[in-house]
Amino acid sequence: MDKRLAVYPGTFDPVTNGHLDLVRRGLMIFDELIIAVALNPKKSPLFTLEERFSMIEAAIRGYRGVRVESFSGLLVDYVKEKGGVAIIRGLRAISDFEYEMQMALMNRRLAGDLETVFMMPSEEFSYLTSTIVKEAASLGGSVAGLVPPGVEDVLKAKFRPKGI
Amino acid sequence: MDKRLAVYPGTFDPVTNGHLDLVRRGLMIFDELIIAVALNPKKSPLFTLEERFSMIEAAIRGYRGVRVESFSGLLVDYVKEKGGVAIIRGLRAISDFEYEMQMALMNRRLAGDLETVFMMPSEEFSYLTSTIVKEAASLGGSVAGLVPPGVEDVLKAKFRPKGI
Amino acid sequence: MDKRLAVYPGTFDPVTNGHLDLVRRGLMIFDELIIAVALNPKKSPLFTLEERFSMIEAAIRGYRGVRVESFSGLLVDYVKEKGGVAIIRGLRAISDFEYEMQMALMNRRLAGDLETVFMMPSEEFSYLTSTIVKEAASLGGSVAGLVPPGVEDVLKAKFRPKGI
Amino acid sequence: MDKRLAVYPGTFDPVTNGHLDLVRRGLMIFDELIIAVALNPKKSPLFTLEERFSMIEAAIRGYRGVRVESFSGLLVDYVKEKGGVAIIRGLRAISDFEYEMQMALMNRRLAGDLETVFMMPSEEFSYLTSTIVKEAASLGGSVAGLVPPGVEDVLKAKFRPKGI
Amino acid sequence: MDKRLAVYPGTFDPVTNGHLDLVRRGLMIFDELIIAVALNPKKSPLFTLEERFSMIEAAIRGYRGVRVESFSGLLVDYVKEKGGVAIIRGLRAISDFEYEMQMALMNRRLAGDLETVFMMPSEEFSYLTSTIVKEAASLGGSVAGLVPPGVEDVLKAKFRPKGI
Amino acid sequence: MDKRLAVYPGTFDPVTNGHLDLVRRGLMIFDELIIAVALNPKKSPLFTLEERFSMIEAAIRGYRGVRVESFSGLLVDYVKEKGGVAIIRGLRAISDFEYEMQMALMNRRLAGDLETVFMMPSEEFSYLTSTIVKEAASLGGSVAGLVPPGVEDVLKAKFRPKGI
Repeated sequence: MDKRLAVYPGTFDPVTNGHLDLVRRGLMIFDELIIAVALNPKKSPLFTLEERFSMIEAAIRGYRGVRVESFSGLLVDYVKEKGGVAIIRGLRAISDFEYEMQMALMNRRLAGDLETVFMMPSEEFSYLTSTIVKEAASLGGSVAGLVPPGVEDVLKAKFRPKGI
Repeated sequence: MDKRLAVYPGTFDPVTNGHLDLVRRGLMIFDELIIAVALNPKKSPLFTLEERFSMIEAAIRGYRGVRVESFSGLLVDYVKEKGGVAIIRGLRAISDFEYEMQMALMNRRLAGDLETVFMMPSEEFSYLTSTIVKEAASLGGSVAGLVPPGVEDVLKAKFRPKGI
Repeated sequence: MDKRLAVYPGTFDPVTNGHLDLVRRGLMIFDELIIAVALNPKKSPLFTLEERFSMIEAAIRGYRGVRVESFSGLLVDYVKEKGGVAIIRGLRAISDFEYEMQMALMNRRLAGDLETVFMMPSEEFSYLTSTIVKEAASLGGSVAGLVPPGVEDVLKAKFRPKGI
Repeated sequence: MDKRLAVYPGTFDPVTNGHLDLVRRGLMIFDELIIAVALNPKKSPLFTLEERFSMIEAAIRGYRGVRVESFSGLLVDYVKEKGGVAIIRGLRAISDFEYEMQMALMNRRLAGDLETVFMMPSEEFSYLTSTIVKEAASLGGSVAGLVPPGVEDVLKAKFRPKGI
Repeated sequence: MDKRLAVYPGTFDPVTNGHLDLVRRGLMIFDELIIAVALNPKKSPLFTLEERFSMIEAAIRGYRGVRVESFSGLLVDYVKEKGGVAIIRGLRAISDFEYEMQMALMNRRLAGDLETVFMMPSEEFSYLTSTIVKEAASLGGSVAGLVPPGVEDVLKAKFRPKGI
Repeated sequence: MDKRLAVYPGTFDPVTNGHLDLVRRGLMIFDELIIAVALNPKKSPLFTLEERFSMIEAAIRGYRGVRVESFSGLLVDYVKEKGGVAIIRGLRAISDFEYEMQMALMNRRLAGDLETVFMMPSEEFSYLTSTIVKEAASLGGSVAGLVPPGVEDVLKAKFRPKGI
């Protein structure tokens, strides 16, 4: 029996506890998982690729079977190069659903032998997004419990009032 | 029995008859209402804070129990500072619903003793947004009946063909 | 300032912790709450009106400002007779949303001076319904944490294998 | 590396090409698949358990790694008894989505170490359900291409005008 | 140029002002319209086919280009027999949307040369259904403005308290 | 009987096979169709108006009853100037649905004698958008089968790695 590898792609700007929850669930199904950070220059992320990368690395320290990588270009090309059998995506809410199905069908058309599997985060993370985390943090709100401790510190530093 | 104060936050760029409909409905439930105009520089509103503010003020002249204010920073901090017991939000359509639930859950996490209550505008305003009003007005379409008379005039002036 | 009374109507077949969560949130906004159990013979409930009634009564023992009643006929007539200013409904998920808006608009047409306010249960109850609780219990699944302890016992008794 | 077994539960009244499409996709992710036919007396299926069972068996003849079984009681108990690591469900449309998330969260509560994974059928089956197949067939419509050939014959026999 | 005929199918149990609104809009696009009342014994309608039929006939008296008929069997067979080029359906809300797309795709598969066109009723009817009308009327609520006057009378007679 | 003209407006940046599928379906209902390319400077399209225009022209060569035009200003003014009786829009998915209803209601308010009719593209195009086509093409993915051959070539040229 071969090892089953899945890829969990995203912008992770920054990684949240919802993402980590999904990683843990993915590891119940797959032997190995790659968290694949998309360059995504169009989305003009708040954090550099390196920052996003290292926040994830810190958060998954001690997890077995998962590693973080970055990729550019077509996701399906990357997944096949890595020998992955599936793409994992979280399914939170309706707006997600439409977009996710669209992406999954496009990816299937680009690579018919790769499947996207959708998994649900815990209810407590059902409405959690990186965007809302950044918005709250930028206004001085606490995001404890929503992101790993390291990310919380980085967000605080990023949004610290200037000149203090 | 204390007075019950609720806050109705938004960008109001510009205020529409749908917003005013919701204000009237909110006053059936709460003793006092603050229309709280968010600075929202990220959304790059068409109207300045002052313009938005004064259009609302003109529209609610004669209403009892409601006033307009502006705020920046975290909404929940502002509501608590004002002694509000609830945040009011309009519920128009599905896309709203998802986003509104996300915001409400985030606000609950930031302030567990503040609730968001959702109210429905009249059916005739079910698909009315500030964005579509601006789009129609910018192309020379009439928005009479969708916005207060004062806003209609301001929109016309804003989009009057140059050089005439 | 008058006391503000709201009515929280439903079939409550049986009451769940999601319902109770909403009651607690409603009491943050309103001075008094009536949990109004609908007869609903069309839905052929599992529990009699009396059973549903007494399960709620047991569950809200010790709560201040809330009582349970039953009603038949038009909800809006009942609410007005009680002097209520609002109908409270929980907003869980999309399918809810459509149905709830439909009911709210119909109720508004039947009584224009009554508003429906929607509130969100805690995320942990976002997908909890009386129906799914009954289904799980009928198959021997534990519903601890989803319903008040008293309801759990009643469900167990109801679905106990016969002859034991 | 252990074999990864997943269970694909449903009423399959009758099995459609959409179900079979999902089975094929499931086998790209899992080593073994059990198609688990629920007794579901509440839904009063058109076909007996035996009929549904044998239609599936005929349809999957020649597939490797998949077998059909029936179950009653809690799905999660059945899956664990079989040693399954996941429940597979198809994700077709919005109404599905809400119901499926509800079931998945309930199943997770009943068995925290079992995950539900959602997969998408081919677009051509995106709106295909057993119900619509039965409705069309009952009115004399052809369902060729929507169900396996054997099911088509059984449906025709079932709905053949009496006395002919 | 041939006349363009469209068929507007439904159960019409009973016809509402939302249905009539759609008929008027359909006549802006098509030369002729048939309101096609489905037998629908499965839905166990409140009114007999004859009652539903005559309520519609009374309501459309004076309309030009529209007539009412009843049909059984496959809708697409009926439409083609009549020489129709399209099926008209109203689009009110999300739950509608899913079901309507499913039916439209099934009908397209059964008859590839027939299209379903969706039209929107006026906002004031966006949440109006025959079901909610019956529910309100059965509890003694007024449905004036939601149904044609004739239907209002029939509903009142139907739900008049017995023995009076 | 007059000729019935409908207008199919959009940005068409670029035209896809989903658009063309809808054109073909529209021609089953209407005698004439105008594909109306909106200037849409706000959306900052990838292709100039001329490029979008000529890609459509090439794609519809040989179709009878359809022509391509461009327009600026209010859509309803343009449609009336052309003598159109309806606006055609495709209905793909939920997010579409909300936005489309909003636009249709606004257009109805601006011109009460113009209706929007919604038609469904083939299932194989249910999740196809110009945006996802551009995204895939920009990353080197093949979009064959999703766009007309001419558009495929133009996309390849546009995204060809520089310096080669």
